[in-house]
This record gives sequence, C-alpha cells and structure tokens, in this order.
Amino acid sequence: MDNFAWLHQPIAAPDETARAAALARQGVLTKPPGALGELEQLAVTLAALQRRERPALQRVQISVFAADHGIAAENVSAFPQAVTGEMVRNFAAGGAAISVLARELGATLEVVHLGTVNDPGPLPGVRRDWIAASSTSFLHAAAMDPSQLAQALAAGRASIAAAVENRTELFIGGEMGIANTTAATALACALIDASPLELAGAGTGLDAAGIRHKAEIVTQAVAFHRAFAVDPLESLRRLGGFEIAALAGAYIAAAQAGVAVLVDGFISSVAALAAVRINPACRDWLLFAHQSAERGHARVLEALEARPLLSLGLRLGEGSGAAAALPLLRLACALHAGMATFEQAGVSAKS
Amino acid sequence: MDNFAWLHQPIAAPDETARAAALARQGVLTKPPGALGELEQLAVTLAALQRRERPALQRVQISVFAADHGIAAENVSAFPQAVTGEMVRNFAAGGAAISVLARELGATLEVVHLGTVNDPGPLPGVRRDWIAASSTSFLHAAAMDPSQLAQALAAGRASIAAAVENRTELFIGGEMGIANTTAATALACALIDASPLELAGAGTGLDAAGIRHKAEIVTQAVAFHRAFAVDPLESLRRLGGFEIAALAGAYIAAAQAGVAVLVDGFISSVAALAAVRINPACRDWLLFAHQSAERGHARVLEALEARPLLSLGLRLGEGSGAAAALPLLRLACALHAGMATFEQAGVSAKS
Repeated sequence: MDNFAWLHQPIAAPDETARAAALARQGVLTKPPGALGELEQLAVTLAALQRRERPALQRVQISVFAADHGIAAENVSAFPQAVTGEMVRNFAAGGAAISVLARELGATLEVVHLGTVNDPGPLPGVRRDWIAASSTSFLHAAAMDPSQLAQALAAGRASIAAAVENRTELFIGGEMGIANTTAATALACALIDASPLELAGAGTGLDAAGIRHKAEIVTQAVAFHRAFAVDPLESLRRLGGFEIAALAGAYIAAAQAGVAVLVDGFISSVAALAAVRINPACRDWLLFAHQSAERGHARVLEALEARPLLSLGLRLGEGSGAAAALPLLRLACALHAGMATFEQAGVSAKS
Repeated sequence: MDNFAWLHQPIAAPDETARAAALARQGVLTKPPGALGELEQLAVTLAALQRRERPALQRVQISVFAADHGIAAENVSAFPQAVTGEMVRNFAAGGAAISVLARELGATLEVVHLGTVNDPGPLPGVRRDWIAASSTSFLHAAAMDPSQLAQALAAGRASIAAAVENRTELFIGGEMGIANTTAATALACALIDASPLELAGAGTGLDAAGIRHKAEIVTQAVAFHRAFAVDPLESLRRLGGFEIAALAGAYIAAAQAGVAVLVDGFISSVAALAAVRINPACRDWLLFAHQSAERGHARVLEALEARPLLSLGLRLGEGSGAAAALPLLRLACALHAGMATFEQAGVSAKS
C-alpha cells in the first residue's frame, strides 16, 4: 500500500518555547489573570502551533469536499441525492452558507468536487478531483476500493499543499454529501465501538422513524464489516466516503505541514477521529469549533478528548460551524497581540 | 421623584410582521430547516427588533461606564481601588481588552467616567459625567443618594441618545469598577431573594477565604437593606453603584428608543435584571452574550429567562464578552441576507 505510506510520515510537536512565551505574555496583560478564559488558551495554543509568541489568523483556507454515497439508496436521508450536485453549483455561485461565511470572513474558499450522481460538470472556482459518481453502498460491500481511498486521501492532501503555498495560518475543512451522516455514524461506531442506536441522529432532518431505520442500516453495516474494525484506515475505506477520507487526509497532511486546523461538526470530527487513529500525533494540530446538534457528536468529541468552543445547535456541515467560530480565534489573537501590559499602561497589579 | 419618571415611559413591542417575514425567509434558504440553529433564531429576533426582514449590524456602539465603590473599603476585591481610574486611562489609550475588541470589530467605543477615587482627570475620548469619587459603602448606608442615582441613570440614557443620533443598530454596555461584583451580588440577592453564599464568586480573583469574606459582607448588607427589597429602583440605589445604575438606565432607554441590546456578563446582567424589574417590557430588547465564569451569573440569567450564546469562561467585564459574541450576530445577519433560496439556486427541497 505505497499510496498510503505518506499518512505515517512524522508530525512535529507544537513549539513549547512559543507556548511558554505566549503564556507569560497573557500573565502581564491588563486584566485579571485568566479573565479572558478560553480566549487566553486559544491564543496560547495558536502560538505553539504557529511557532511564534503572537499568532495571527489573517490567511484562512476553507476547503469543502463534496461527494455522493452509495448508502443513500437505503433511504437514510431526508433530502434526495440530487442535492449534493446541486449544492456544488450553489457553492460555486456563492449562495450556500459556507460561501456567505467565507466572504464575510475574508477566507479563501476552495470547493473540491470528488464525484456526484447528479454531475453539474466543471464549474468556475470548483476543483474537479473526480473519483466516481458515488461511493459503493457499504451495507454489503466496502464503500471504496483501495485506489478510490488513496485518491480521496490525496485530494485532501492536495488542499493542504495549496494552503501551504498560500502561507495559510488556519485550515478549515467542510463537507457536503447526502447520506454522509450515515457513513460518519457507521465509521464512528467502528472506531469507538459504540452502538448505532446511541450515535445515529436526524442528519438533515429525519423523524424518529427515519432515525430508527438509519440506526438499523448502520447496525447491519457495522456487523458486516466488524472483522476489520481494528484497522482505522480499513474502517475508513469500508464505511467512510470520498469527502470523509479527503478530510482525514487533509487533517494528517496539515499536521505534517505544521498548519493549525479548526474542525467543524459531526462528520468532520469523525474524519478527525479516523485521522488521529491513523496518525495519533495529528491530534495536537486540531482545534474543535462547535458541538453539533447531531446526536453522535458528543460521543465522538469525547473520544477525541475535545472540548469545542461553541454550542449553538448547528447541524449544517459545509465547514459552517468552524467558520462561525473563526472570529473568536481571531479576537483571541488580537487581544493577545494588542492589549497593553500592566507596566505599559501603568495599571496596578493584584493586591 | 420626577427625575425617575422617564424610566416608566412605554416601550414598544418588537415587530411581529418583520419577525414572521424573517422566519419565512429562513425556511426557504438552501439548508435543512433549522440547521443553522441559534444563528437562525438570532436573525429572526434581530429582524423583529430592527423592524425589517433583513437586519444588519454595521453600526455598533459600546459604552463602558467606570466608577468606584465605597464597599471596596471592606477588602472584597483582589485588586486595589486605584485600578478603576488607571483602567479609565487604559481604555482611553487603547490598551484595554475592550479597546482592542472595539477596534477589531469596527465598533464605536464610548468611555463614560462617572467617578473614581484615583482621578486621571479629563482624557481624550472619555466622556466625563462625574457624580462623585465613589459610591458610599452600602454596608450600613445607601450606596447612592437619590440625586446620584438619577445622575447615573441619566448617564446611561445619554449614551443611548448618542446611539440613536448615530443610527446605532446594536448597543453593548460595559463596566469597570473595583468591587463591583460585590455590589452586583448584593443587588442580585435583593432582586431575586437568593443567598449571598450561593451568588458570591471570585470576581477578579479572590481565593476561597476571600469569597467567604465577601459573602459575609454581602449577607450583612442585604440584611441591613432588606426592608426595601420590594422596590427594584430603591434596591438599585441602596446596593448598586454608579456604573450599574448607568447600565440599567441605558438598557431601559435603549428599549424605549427601539435599539437592540447585547448584554455582557455578570454585572451587566444584574443591571439588566434591575432594568427589567423597573420596566418589564425592556426584556424583549435584550440579547445575552455569554455565560460568565462568575458564580452568580447562572442564577441571574435564569431569573431573566436568558440563554446566552457563548460559554467560554470569561469574567473580565468591560463589555468584552458581548464584543466577543458580536461576530456571531453579524454572521447570522449575513447568512440571513446573503444565502440563496432553494428556488434561486435550483436546489431540491426535502423528500
């Protein structure tokens, strides 16, 4: 499996000297120590990841990976499969949530089209990295063959190569793919040995009966692939999807390149969990944006020992929750760099 | 008490037509219904407050009210009293957290100096609305005489007059005053009949013994003023402080003027609770930014039936938590106004 050797290349540790310098600076800024809570911790963590006492987040890249899923044939989504391709067009036209957010935030938006049953064809601003019209239904077969998995992982890696080229200071991955909460739920069940009944949620809007049916499909699929669950890369191939594998590849490549990552919601977190199981050192490079309303997310975050910044009932995907959290990271950096010290301002310290 | 008659002037209800139009728009934007969670609700609420289907938040005013407290003599703060005046200078010089945040957010920052024991004198960019060097210790007396209370409330009202003049779309109040968590705790105990032991917290950084002492001081003070607790304005006069009263006056005036408010943390929320008890209709105009790390905040938010947006362990005041939440409101507005509808984008609706 030479196509997969890069996944295991080493990942550098964050810079503890920069972390210590940032922590010391936080201690002398004109505020009670600790009073800016997680905004202080964010600045300190970003200092360690960016290897400088004063981190910055001007150049942010958002890559949204879109792909269809064979498992959609099992009636597990509230929306028709045609929507994936339609949304690729909407991303390109600037009308989707992530399009609006990227504009507002001054972030670079890259749309990566990995394959959809409804193919809008080449579109301006869309990188066409076609693998197939859809993954295979994983109910009784693997979602991807090894070559497709390698292509999907490489698509994520290519996005990080572009990010490095542009001196990107933070990477956000997003996804679009009808039925991809079903794939993510199945993959999460394999990775953390959880019950589909515990993790299966409403996705884009299933009712209670729909969720029961989805959990039943996931239960069958996880049982079918159970023998391979010990290998996270094989679980990703069997139960994931093109965009989920691309995200996992992007996260590993980002860590290898020393680019900080802000992880979005449920599907992105499952991809992050797969990435961490494949190359554990990438965990240090992942920040977590929000607690999704999707049922299984809390359990996946727990497996990642992640405490996200926001909890606003978001469940859209596309990277939208991470984009919504980006201003907090930017404000954390601005406060860290821009506040006066007690000495500079002539303010008395604690009694 | 003619000086207080304005507090009871009527407050208009939010615009239900605009709210309904915004809600209908949210239902046709290209996302699963409800998938943007609280960001959808924010856009809809702001539509009702701004009386237009598509609200905007370009013009934001942050007013920080600074004042000293007589109760500081009881050794209830981790920082010396001189810090209040020193921080007024730091606000003016641009080195405080709220100075940095206002710059980053493109918000107008107004600093209102109501009185400090350590007087930095007139400063550029600071509105000097001097009441006295400090309130009176409320341990065995009222914190303010009626004239001082009227002046403090009017200072807040004057900030809203400026906001209206500038066609401000959102008002954020902030505060600075050594020992003001003690005043806010005492006032909250009077307003919601809670125990000082339950509400007293670390403020700027008291240790456990310091918190016990603070709770004891608050217990004595609340007992001394108990007979007057039925009247929220009288409780504000007896247990509040200049900046707390200014915030309460600003919130009522904002509601009367139809200006939406984003409330900051513990002290601001206690001022908001006083405002709501004085003129209940102002509650509709208040949005709540964050859950502070200060112990009593959760209980005060509960009394206001408020669910804040963020919970990041902030406990700085100055309006900093509200400023940190502002980008979420702006992104909510941008998504609401900028996303394509299913029809515009040619995206299929739910199956």
